[in-house]
Amino acid sequence: MQHKTLIELINSEPSHHEITVRGWVRSFRSNRFIALNDGSTIKTLQCVVDFENFEEEILKKITIGAAVQITGILVESQGQGQTVELQVSKVKVLGEADPEEVKLTILSPKRHTLEKLREQAHLRVRTNTFGAVMRTRSKLAFAIHEYFHKNGFFYMHAPIITGSDAEGAGEMFHVTALDAKNPPLTKDGKIDYKEDFFEKETNLTVSGQLEAETYAMALGKVYTFGPTFRAENSNTSRHLAEFWMIEPEVAFNDLDANMDLAEDFIKYVIKYALDNCADDLEFLENRLLEEEKSKPQDERSAMKLREKLQFVLENNFKRVSYTEAIDILKNSNPNKKKKFKYIIEEWGADLQSEHERFLVEKHFKCPVILFDYPAKIKAFYMRLNDDGKTVRAMDVLFPGIGEIVGGSQREERYDVLKEKMEAMDISAEELYWYLDLRKFGTATHSGFGLGFERLVQFATGMGNIRDVIPYPRTPGNAEF
Amino acid sequence: MQHKTLIELINSEPSHHEITVRGWVRSFRSNRFIALNDGSTIKTLQCVVDFENFEEEILKKITIGAAVQITGILVESQGQGQTVELQVSKVKVLGEADPEEVKLTILSPKRHTLEKLREQAHLRVRTNTFGAVMRTRSKLAFAIHEYFHKNGFFYMHAPIITGSDAEGAGEMFHVTALDAKNPPLTKDGKIDYKEDFFEKETNLTVSGQLEAETYAMALGKVYTFGPTFRAENSNTSRHLAEFWMIEPEVAFNDLDANMDLAEDFIKYVIKYALDNCADDLEFLENRLLEEEKSKPQDERSAMKLREKLQFVLENNFKRVSYTEAIDILKNSNPNKKKKFKYIIEEWGADLQSEHERFLVEKHFKCPVILFDYPAKIKAFYMRLNDDGKTVRAMDVLFPGIGEIVGGSQREERYDVLKEKMEAMDISAEELYWYLDLRKFGTATHSGFGLGFERLVQFATGMGNIRDVIPYPRTPGNAEF
Repeated sequence: MQHKTLIELINSEPSHHEITVRGWVRSFRSNRFIALNDGSTIKTLQCVVDFENFEEEILKKITIGAAVQITGILVESQGQGQTVELQVSKVKVLGEADPEEVKLTILSPKRHTLEKLREQAHLRVRTNTFGAVMRTRSKLAFAIHEYFHKNGFFYMHAPIITGSDAEGAGEMFHVTALDAKNPPLTKDGKIDYKEDFFEKETNLTVSGQLEAETYAMALGKVYTFGPTFRAENSNTSRHLAEFWMIEPEVAFNDLDANMDLAEDFIKYVIKYALDNCADDLEFLENRLLEEEKSKPQDERSAMKLREKLQFVLENNFKRVSYTEAIDILKNSNPNKKKKFKYIIEEWGADLQSEHERFLVEKHFKCPVILFDYPAKIKAFYMRLNDDGKTVRAMDVLFPGIGEIVGGSQREERYDVLKEKMEAMDISAEELYWYLDLRKFGTATHSGFGLGFERLVQFATGMGNIRDVIPYPRTPGNAEF
Repeated sequence: MQHKTLIELINSEPSHHEITVRGWVRSFRSNRFIALNDGSTIKTLQCVVDFENFEEEILKKITIGAAVQITGILVESQGQGQTVELQVSKVKVLGEADPEEVKLTILSPKRHTLEKLREQAHLRVRTNTFGAVMRTRSKLAFAIHEYFHKNGFFYMHAPIITGSDAEGAGEMFHVTALDAKNPPLTKDGKIDYKEDFFEKETNLTVSGQLEAETYAMALGKVYTFGPTFRAENSNTSRHLAEFWMIEPEVAFNDLDANMDLAEDFIKYVIKYALDNCADDLEFLENRLLEEEKSKPQDERSAMKLREKLQFVLENNFKRVSYTEAIDILKNSNPNKKKKFKYIIEEWGADLQSEHERFLVEKHFKCPVILFDYPAKIKAFYMRLNDDGKTVRAMDVLFPGIGEIVGGSQREERYDVLKEKMEAMDISAEELYWYLDLRKFGTATHSGFGLGFERLVQFATGMGNIRDVIPYPRTPGNAEF
């Protein structure tokens, strides 16, 4: 007897052999039609029960959420919406689901808000929406690994616990094995981290970039794909305290090559999703249409989900310097009419989400790569241009989502980097190893960071970042 | 002009077109032969300089470790050991490497101990040994993702920061955003974690298994591949405080299916390494032979590295119950002659590495899967057998390395699980969500954990686990 998953069966030909399937009951209509799902696909297999030949005791246990094993013959479907169905000869209830208990959970067959689903994150993945999101998330992750491996990159695991807090990319979580109530103290009354596990103060990483650079300068092309952390109290639909980031880093790439890589990479993974998640994306597209019905017309998406993904594939990302962008924004209607919350007054201003979205959605109407930002608003490791005031930074901006990628060409000149670190109060002593890369065979190199959850949001159309990661970590929230 | 990586060129045909390559100088002999490496392969490209036509100034800068861009024509090689070489027309030194400074680092061309290399972990990946290890590590990681995706698994990111410390799998690191010096206190003088970022005490995960189970019971087949942490003060060559773990979890799989999966999976990734890392494994095999020359004959490996990998592919893993294994051990020579450090006296004893290695290396002479362990020495979530004293646990034991996989069929019966949690003092309140899986459509399911670094050690022959991860975290060590 074969055990097959539904994804293997649903698009197959009727076999007329006896097969056994296992999964969970999604519905049971008229004591006759079981809609079975096993998580391998969003689709259900219709299993047709000849109820007169089944014991009442068993039929009563076939309830929503129950785990069952069903044996039968795969035949042409009589109903609509499926090509095959299972003519059931035997049902074994593996695990019941008491309807009275189910009623108290999100498994009950009625509309639940996304907030409510979040509270039962251990069960929400059994819903169509979250099944579709998490399958798509998985496929996107694989597409990322596949892209890089096909293109000669090496996957590098950057450390999660770091003794370095020199980057200044954000607030960090402390990691310690000390007894918080009675930490050992030094003579002058400070916490004695020499007594801690790592014999120094340690934090959770905010980025694997600096370590990835050390590997790029040896293996040529590398990428990280791992969790990163921010201890910022941002209780928004765009921020997580724990999120996954992809950071490619390439020796000998300048900023133009870096832009080429970002565009090619994003297009590859989006194409992969369109090709490999068709059923899930169709469902998510309809879900989004439904959700947006309650919004005023002008807040609805201009394009359907898959149209938007296709649009990204088919258009070149428009490359625009920061200086050009500031000119466009200064002369824009929302700026002149003071519709922006932050009015753009002069060169040097940091761009807010509203400005980025204006550029992408209203002005250029396509993904945009901004580059050559003012040095003052960017990190210490970005390469200084000859003008002495801009750096070789780039941000990729996407419709609906704003910044999806941030990257730069790195400062490869020892003296320039050291001077900048001093000016920005970053310890050269602590980052001696980072400076070493500029001492021994330095070369032009570039990379970028892509927030994985932002990508999943874009691909699935989910509005809240908490709904695209299994167990979101946000202020006040570390359940499960 | 094309920019190609060495891996694309070295096995290609002579092109007789002008090409440009970039990389780092490994050696420069007789002012004529540059051995160039760019990290894409362990091999170097021989670049032949007609020194009479080059400026002395440039030639002087072509030193070990320097980054260079070389233009020339790819021709049949005159020398041995390569099919093509580059007839150089132009050399551009991108980044120098001062020989006096190089001399002070592990980049200097002499033998350095692995300990010494570890201290300069940001540079060690530029050596042949670590380049080979890290490229192999990357390929193994990809093979893992590929295997699961080909087989219908979904990749699931388990949370890193967890509010649950219920598993008891090991000592945990605390994660906090509180000021360690002046933490807020409750009225009765305890740390007030309500004031912390997550409003509760949080730790770094020791395993994603429990969360993976929640996803398996919805999506069917899932796996995690992420970092896990142990705050145990184990300063050995087998332990890391931060390591990467792979944890597949499959609904409807019993322990036999779990064993099949583990064996099939391990064979797939090892075959992938043999097929895709030939040059690196050849180098590592020779390195190991060299290293073992200093060992007494009887401590040397019985097989060469690739023979050992091939051996795992070609042999069925021997499946042996714990009870059988105890009988074998009790009657073994080292037990009778008291050569074991821990003498096996009776059923119920926990097996030590020496016992595992005896079974694998001396008795069965092949990989072994032990199963049905005493309940008392295993975790609360493993399924109790009808004998009431053993559980459906399994460990896969490998030659030279001992346990590489630990897994089990999970206890799917609500009452049995609850009773066991109570007996083992595990909070049912805190793990309500884990119990919920047994309340709503429970079913047989199984999974296992594979320590990624152990696998990389096995595949590369590296004796110390600190040498198979870019930046090892161990007691007293969180550099870089």
